[in-house]
Amino acid sequence: MKITILDSTLRDGAQGEGISLSEDDKLKIIMLLDSVGVDFIEAGNPASNPKDADLFAELKNRKLRHSKICAFGSTRRRNVSVESDWGIRALADAGTEAVSIVGKASLDQVIEILNTSPEENLNMIKDSVDHLKSLGKYVIFDAEHFFDGFKSNEEYALSALRAAANADILCLCDTNGGTFTSDIEAVVKKVKSAFPSKEIGIHCHNDCGLAVANSMYAVRAGAGHIQGTFLGFGERCGNANLSTIIPNLQLKQGTECIPDSCLPLLTVTARRIADIANYALPSSRPYIGRSAFAHKGGMHIDAVSKNSSSFEHIDPSLVGNQRRFLISEMSGKSTLMSMIHSIDPDLTRDSPVVVDLIEELKLREMKGYQYEGAEASFELIIRRKLGIISKYFDLDYYKTVGETASSATQYPAAAIMKVNVNGESEITAAEGNGPVNALDLALRKALTRFYPRLKEMHLTDFKVRVLESDATTAAAVRVLIESSDGVHSWSTIGVSNDIIDASFIALRDSVEYKLMLDDQQEK
Amino acid sequence: MKITILDSTLRDGAQGEGISLSEDDKLKIIMLLDSVGVDFIEAGNPASNPKDADLFAELKNRKLRHSKICAFGSTRRRNVSVESDWGIRALADAGTEAVSIVGKASLDQVIEILNTSPEENLNMIKDSVDHLKSLGKYVIFDAEHFFDGFKSNEEYALSALRAAANADILCLCDTNGGTFTSDIEAVVKKVKSAFPSKEIGIHCHNDCGLAVANSMYAVRAGAGHIQGTFLGFGERCGNANLSTIIPNLQLKQGTECIPDSCLPLLTVTARRIADIANYALPSSRPYIGRSAFAHKGGMHIDAVSKNSSSFEHIDPSLVGNQRRFLISEMSGKSTLMSMIHSIDPDLTRDSPVVVDLIEELKLREMKGYQYEGAEASFELIIRRKLGIISKYFDLDYYKTVGETASSATQYPAAAIMKVNVNGESEITAAEGNGPVNALDLALRKALTRFYPRLKEMHLTDFKVRVLESDATTAAAVRVLIESSDGVHSWSTIGVSNDIIDASFIALRDSVEYKLMLDDQQEK
Repeated sequence: MKITILDSTLRDGAQGEGISLSEDDKLKIIMLLDSVGVDFIEAGNPASNPKDADLFAELKNRKLRHSKICAFGSTRRRNVSVESDWGIRALADAGTEAVSIVGKASLDQVIEILNTSPEENLNMIKDSVDHLKSLGKYVIFDAEHFFDGFKSNEEYALSALRAAANADILCLCDTNGGTFTSDIEAVVKKVKSAFPSKEIGIHCHNDCGLAVANSMYAVRAGAGHIQGTFLGFGERCGNANLSTIIPNLQLKQGTECIPDSCLPLLTVTARRIADIANYALPSSRPYIGRSAFAHKGGMHIDAVSKNSSSFEHIDPSLVGNQRRFLISEMSGKSTLMSMIHSIDPDLTRDSPVVVDLIEELKLREMKGYQYEGAEASFELIIRRKLGIISKYFDLDYYKTVGETASSATQYPAAAIMKVNVNGESEITAAEGNGPVNALDLALRKALTRFYPRLKEMHLTDFKVRVLESDATTAAAVRVLIESSDGVHSWSTIGVSNDIIDASFIALRDSVEYKLMLDDQQEK
Repeated sequence: MKITILDSTLRDGAQGEGISLSEDDKLKIIMLLDSVGVDFIEAGNPASNPKDADLFAELKNRKLRHSKICAFGSTRRRNVSVESDWGIRALADAGTEAVSIVGKASLDQVIEILNTSPEENLNMIKDSVDHLKSLGKYVIFDAEHFFDGFKSNEEYALSALRAAANADILCLCDTNGGTFTSDIEAVVKKVKSAFPSKEIGIHCHNDCGLAVANSMYAVRAGAGHIQGTFLGFGERCGNANLSTIIPNLQLKQGTECIPDSCLPLLTVTARRIADIANYALPSSRPYIGRSAFAHKGGMHIDAVSKNSSSFEHIDPSLVGNQRRFLISEMSGKSTLMSMIHSIDPDLTRDSPVVVDLIEELKLREMKGYQYEGAEASFELIIRRKLGIISKYFDLDYYKTVGETASSATQYPAAAIMKVNVNGESEITAAEGNGPVNALDLALRKALTRFYPRLKEMHLTDFKVRVLESDATTAAAVRVLIESSDGVHSWSTIGVSNDIIDASFIALRDSVEYKLMLDDQQEK
């Protein structure tokens, strides 16, 4: 069985708090959604937003491999002919193969919000659907407030669907997200029996934390079309999360949502969209989150090693994700030992150097270090303790100066850096947009004379977290840095009361890790 | 109908990636969970974690108003008598009224992981439950891997429950989180009919995004006890989120989970637990998230103003949350106008000063400013543009110096600050843990001579976000600061390429806002 998927990240998703997408962002997201094989991409509302109109104009020149672009709009305004309604005209002019139009299915809403007669609302729906069909569009009718409307006036809600009967899909919306799963199932069943030959769609919001379940039960009850957003973006608590629904249905129930060959792209697609939207993807997200297959408890790690289904409901590679064993107090020693053994197989838990190392890691954890997500720093600590990393350089000192930013000073900060490599001193300085930037540039500048390959590396991400919220600017700061040399990427950590010092610690680890990688390659 | 709630934030929740709780954190969370009225607080595993044993010792001296503390452990080890099993002894010695013990209900797991005979596993369960009952404990039996076990060997899964029949609650665990809602419902029904007089519990994980729905359907099928974590903390994708399940059941289905009088505490409890756990609560969380009742689209704002149920499934005050109209491109002008009207009712959208203001806000948005969550800075921009805020001070300049952090220097950073208040200059300096801390102290020090009430204010939170990830340390940085004077709290924003400059902009707004608040109070 195949159902169709409509992604509304760019339309309903853009209503989410903190989500703000440029035209370029939107184009990138469209290409990603096309690659992962969703059927419809609702790209915006050409009537309400001039930027969206530009986007649709640009999209006329793009070829997509799989998805149909869908323009969104409302039914015609009241007491206006459909031909002269500018919203409907904007929809037609968007030049998309598909359009979705929203109309009211709740009599209360018609009276209170739309302020028109029940009959005129039905005419608005019918005129709009029929007109767009006559233009050859694939028409999806979004019945707004359908479930609330059905509850208070079943007959009127159904008559709204009858007015839209020429649409290709009748999509039932739980607009305020308040409907429970069992009610969704019951209502969809009734609608399906009233419109047995019609494709029924479902559009859920997550205000009760039930949008995934509601969408799945709608399919169980006969729906063949799901609307949602890939990462669950959307107003209030968000829309139904497609990155959860798709693998649920496809991997575990045999309902095809996207081409099977696209399933392993789910994780990378989710992470790229999050990057583009500048959205911190919660690590606990089902299927695609960084922690979705991460194991921390020692007993769990043991059990997963013996039988992965103990604590993994699917093989993470099916969705392009991967298993992780976390470095923590609880699981710490076994993860640590396996890393130590990969370096020196003769060491045991009782070896004095290992006991020492565990002690040091504990002290660092107390200071606020956390090696989940900073695997390069973790490896460096082990190597340093075991004495199997070269001494690449010593820091003599650094100094930073900064001043009021103004248009007169291009670089308001500068850093002096003095390092020592094998007894040879190098002192240099660099200026930057801020002290961290200046330090980063000065450190690499000072070392490049000795290690020219440092030119290959650059920072790709830089995150700051204040650890205690009581004393605030005087509180401990944790800096995580991601770096890349185009081939490898690695992440390092620094913790200090001073944000500059914390950044320097992470920068220093990053540089040392790169030097170590180069050494290993040359061997 | 009343069901009981067990919160496992401190036990299963602590297995979540990035969650690390000190004993003090745990005690604070226990007091919060007690205040919000959950029935059981699973506080840890005294056998596996010596820190948890300390916590239980401390808890013996604490009086709780509502909750029973529950110690968690496993059934006795194989081939060991229950009396001599140290795990069982640790559970008994924890001194709690209730205990939860986990035993295997899946025959596959017994054979593959536990490596013992089917009969010995049943004996382990029976001996452990009966022994703890004989000590007068309230016993909750957690049947691990129950749903997977039931699927592959129904009879064995039920026999595990029969072995535990003397427990007060038989709790069915979907350990790997892979079971769909309809299967949960069907299996719970079968179990309830096999044990009609027994209290059945449900323990779900969120690997399919269904933990809320699964818990609710288990209740529908006859379960009277739900286990979860207040914020959904837990290994992988987390445990069932109690802050969603409780209001779902209690507000919308009439099933009592906590005392009715505690429902308005849900939001503050959730936010305090998040603070303690140093966890960034996703703003979209149902009921308790900052965005849960936030409206962005202009039409939605209009409709909610006319009839709140259009886009709100409940009244937010029922759970202690509140409605917010967001400041954005889409809703921007009406939100802006209502704020402008509260200051000057005579201005219209066409007033030149308003046109100017909108232009300025657009430019700032392009730079990376975002006023959602920085309402104080937003108000200051309007007031400055309208010319209705006093000029409290001018910055002449600041300079910062920093150096390598070392044990010899207590404060590795210092700032020089020169300000001008009504023609009078003041230059001062302060040292700090880092340049931002030094700047904050220097600014307030310089101004306190003129405005002594600045002593009342302090920063409560400080967040840094890098806006583009390409150029990294040279990329734009957004700093959000929250401040409080013990009576009010407010949030401000700064954006710059330089993290110090961005911090200064937000600090400056914060200080100006405080001065404005004091002025208003004095009037």
